[in-house]
Amino acid sequence: MSGLPTAWYNVIPDLPSPLPPDLPGPGGGTPDGLVPQIPVGLVRQELSRAAQIPIPAEILEHYRRFRPTPLKRAAGLEQAIGSRARIYYKYEGGNVSGSHKLNTALAQAYYYRQAGATRLVTATGAGQWGTALAYACQAFGLECTAYMVRSSHQAKPYRRVLMEMLGAEVLPSPSPRTEAGRAVLAADGDHGGSLAIAMTEALQSARAEPAARFATGSGESYSILHQTVIGLEAREQLAELGETADVVIASLGAGSNFGGLAAPFLREALTGTAKTGPRCVAVEPAACPKLTRGVYRYDFTDSSASGPLQKMYTLGHAFAPATIHAGGLRYHGTAKIVSVLREHGLVESVAYPQNPVLASGALFARVEGVVPAPESAHAVHAAIVEARQAPPESVIVFCLSGHGLLDLAAYDDHLRGVLPDYELPEAELTRSLASIPALDLETTEAIGVR
Amino acid sequence: MSGLPTAWYNVIPDLPSPLPPDLPGPGGGTPDGLVPQIPVGLVRQELSRAAQIPIPAEILEHYRRFRPTPLKRAAGLEQAIGSRARIYYKYEGGNVSGSHKLNTALAQAYYYRQAGATRLVTATGAGQWGTALAYACQAFGLECTAYMVRSSHQAKPYRRVLMEMLGAEVLPSPSPRTEAGRAVLAADGDHGGSLAIAMTEALQSARAEPAARFATGSGESYSILHQTVIGLEAREQLAELGETADVVIASLGAGSNFGGLAAPFLREALTGTAKTGPRCVAVEPAACPKLTRGVYRYDFTDSSASGPLQKMYTLGHAFAPATIHAGGLRYHGTAKIVSVLREHGLVESVAYPQNPVLASGALFARVEGVVPAPESAHAVHAAIVEARQAPPESVIVFCLSGHGLLDLAAYDDHLRGVLPDYELPEAELTRSLASIPALDLETTEAIGVR
Repeated sequence: MSGLPTAWYNVIPDLPSPLPPDLPGPGGGTPDGLVPQIPVGLVRQELSRAAQIPIPAEILEHYRRFRPTPLKRAAGLEQAIGSRARIYYKYEGGNVSGSHKLNTALAQAYYYRQAGATRLVTATGAGQWGTALAYACQAFGLECTAYMVRSSHQAKPYRRVLMEMLGAEVLPSPSPRTEAGRAVLAADGDHGGSLAIAMTEALQSARAEPAARFATGSGESYSILHQTVIGLEAREQLAELGETADVVIASLGAGSNFGGLAAPFLREALTGTAKTGPRCVAVEPAACPKLTRGVYRYDFTDSSASGPLQKMYTLGHAFAPATIHAGGLRYHGTAKIVSVLREHGLVESVAYPQNPVLASGALFARVEGVVPAPESAHAVHAAIVEARQAPPESVIVFCLSGHGLLDLAAYDDHLRGVLPDYELPEAELTRSLASIPALDLETTEAIGVR
Repeated sequence: MSGLPTAWYNVIPDLPSPLPPDLPGPGGGTPDGLVPQIPVGLVRQELSRAAQIPIPAEILEHYRRFRPTPLKRAAGLEQAIGSRARIYYKYEGGNVSGSHKLNTALAQAYYYRQAGATRLVTATGAGQWGTALAYACQAFGLECTAYMVRSSHQAKPYRRVLMEMLGAEVLPSPSPRTEAGRAVLAADGDHGGSLAIAMTEALQSARAEPAARFATGSGESYSILHQTVIGLEAREQLAELGETADVVIASLGAGSNFGGLAAPFLREALTGTAKTGPRCVAVEPAACPKLTRGVYRYDFTDSSASGPLQKMYTLGHAFAPATIHAGGLRYHGTAKIVSVLREHGLVESVAYPQNPVLASGALFARVEGVVPAPESAHAVHAAIVEARQAPPESVIVFCLSGHGLLDLAAYDDHLRGVLPDYELPEAELTRSLASIPALDLETTEAIGVR
């Protein structure tokens, strides 16, 4: 098996155009005007011009417990669909958090501890990120508090138990512990919560304790950096098999899973040492197709429009995602790095409704023996679609970013035929896009962007 | 990584005394007098005098998808408990069934198909065996029907969904499909079921369809044979690391997990090429301590006392196990092979209550990043106990037979302090042992045993 990379790949200096700078929102920061305090170690990574950023030894030691992750030939799947292409998948679900999120959680816990934090506070919906952060915190001797959307807290008790087992304190949000939570509960004592409320609570709670910090799972450029271990390993593992990727596929939430897989495969194309790279395909739910149907504009990163603005592919911050099982793919925006790559035509995207996606996930479980998370099943489905139309001898690689053993309710609904397919209607898209702010001339001139 | 064994290790010819023959019960077979029809391929394995039984290529092909399984150094655990011993664990939970059961399920499906079966029918409690058989059946093109104890069917929907995803038909038992099920339902329409009822239904159902057969997960000598891939791989993996096992540990249900790990480690001691083997420790729940507190006697293998009798360590077939979370370790008897090894002092046993076991399981999850199934947590706990009292430089190996991601309710109860510790009371043991039949002189003389 290939070795573990000792450096992350920093794609930022290789991008065809620089990342557009962020703009402060009316609140100056995130919801309620609270800005997370990012440790200097992470800030430095975002500003670095080095293509290789060494992975600190302490992080490597933890990576070694589950990395390198396997790259497997999906021989059973190839046979089942009569593929003439060879299909490989990189499996990131074999760690305790069950997904790729642990790659950045460990790095974040390390840098936050280095900056003097003793507790990380976060918001979690389905609980995948919360689980990764809980493990990372105990690995680096930090306390962890997770505000979990109350409806998930009740509907997904297993994820809560897992976080608690890993030493985290898990509070259903809205909670009586924060001002924001108390305000919501005063109006409605049975409020089911939302990720926005949980995030505000986590921020307030982190602010109330001097050595506590708020940590977030994806979307930031540093989380894509940390996730490049996926693509770096996959490239090396393919090379050892004498293979070169023609198509690289990953699902797209905010962008860290897709970016972490794709960026290392694009390096030669970006640096001009090769004319083209492999086709890189981001897969989205039809219910939230920001890269496929969104626009490249400055928009708020948070739904309350109080935080900073980033230039990104967005559906509009007012976008209200439908309740789909791929809870991790419902964010309205896209990481800046992925957005720049898309704008320059270096990556493409495709969107699918959830029933065909889960059908492909169930097929994969039967023929490959791994149950994909609903998010990851998007990549499985796209790989199948690509394999069916690929020229013979093509090589397709996708990231199976997580297992779905705690998401079996999704498959149950699908198998019983009670799952609606949801495609974002044109009218709703138009309304949602209208929430994107028009920047005045002064602002755009000051920052030198259109 | 080490290679996959190409032959199973048949320990039977190496045993210090032959396996005592089975005796027919009053019903001639299993509950209701129904005898499962075992395919000749499996019968031959039980009768073979060869120490090496080649694994058929088709089974190997499926084993290759998840084997060899990893043998990992539990460095985090060693550090957490201040161990001077080196601790290794063999992880069998990385396949779709989540446990070692797949090793025998694949072999059984292969031999049943070879014998002309087109459907396998089984009974499942918590669903671990049912999941393994569902996957194995679809791997070999067989239909699969699982009668799942109704209370589990309702309380553990995830296992049911997983079986259905893998193409199995899952019926809550008692069901209206069989005579036995209808009889129970007529008396009580809300009956929660039991494994005994589910087994009777599975047998009746298999009998009603010419090419259907009943398959069972453990206890049989052939299932220990199939599980020896665990121990064979572990030995070779240790040897590659330059290590020799001093203590070998596995949990004990009917015996296939423990036997499969231990037998290959005992080979030199059994064949006289070494004076002693490593200490082999079977770990039981204090609620069901058949090897630790039971007796070596002829007893019925089924609770209804209608099936065959086997000479084995038993608590008495009337033993009514307490409701503990390690559902897979509640059987009253022990596999014949393990019983013979125990009788000759070649293996030892120990029994623990469930709270310390689950505390060790939770610790393991935190420091090693794998959530053990409650069954497997018994081995974790015993390894910790051994490591704390082991001489420096000792090498301890245990089998982490399955993951506990679908058993998080157990950990939840433990963490909340609402889980009772249950130790089999002396009076109950006495009453249960009294159910063991006294064999008449004629019978014992006829079969040449005491």
